[in-house]
Amino acid sequence: MATKFSDLELAINTLVTEFHKSADDGPTMNTTQFQTMLSNQLPAFSKTVEGEEGLAQVLQQMGVESGQDISFNHFWTLINKQAIDLFGSTHKEKNVKCSCLLQ
Amino acid sequence: MATKFSDLELAINTLVTEFHKSADDGPTMNTTQFQTMLSNQLPAFSKTVEGEEGLAQVLQQMGVESGQDISFNHFWTLINKQAIDLFGSTHKEKNVKCSCLLQ
Repeated sequence: MATKFSDLELAINTLVTEFHKSADDGPTMNTTQFQTMLSNQLPAFSKTVEGEEGLAQVLQQMGVESGQDISFNHFWTLINKQAIDLFGSTHKEKNVKCSCLLQ
Repeated sequence: MATKFSDLELAINTLVTEFHKSADDGPTMNTTQFQTMLSNQLPAFSKTVEGEEGLAQVLQQMGVESGQDISFNHFWTLINKQAIDLFGSTHKEKNVKCSCLLQ
């Protein structure tokens, strides 16, 4: 296939692919897989998550209930948060509201 | 800076950067800028959006009201939809629900 994808399409593809990789191609990832993903793929954010308590807090913000595995939807709330933070820091006007996620 | 970013970080950065580019560094993009972005960055999806009516439908699904410009939050609902569709097509179990977006 000689199809050339756009930067945006490649970026979306990367987000989905990284979930698949971290979840070992399963439908969800467990907490250990999630921690490994954080360290490898979001190292800057990972450093702000300290210990069991920090991790529990992140999982809670992602809507993951105690003992539950992490779905693509949960993962997406984290990506969403990262993107909004980045958008906020790269644009003075914080006009982004996303009440449906990470309340 | 010799910092090396992960694929996931680069992907998030691309999504934010593409919005900035399409919006000419403004806080929102107008319908014309949005159409240009669709053609350039989401050509496959763009082909499914035919004419004024198709565009109006997409904007409505993104939560954009008539005459309103497109914010990063609106843009993000589109990215979210693309990612969920891609995840759905790359994983048999459609376990993704996101009732808060694109109802």
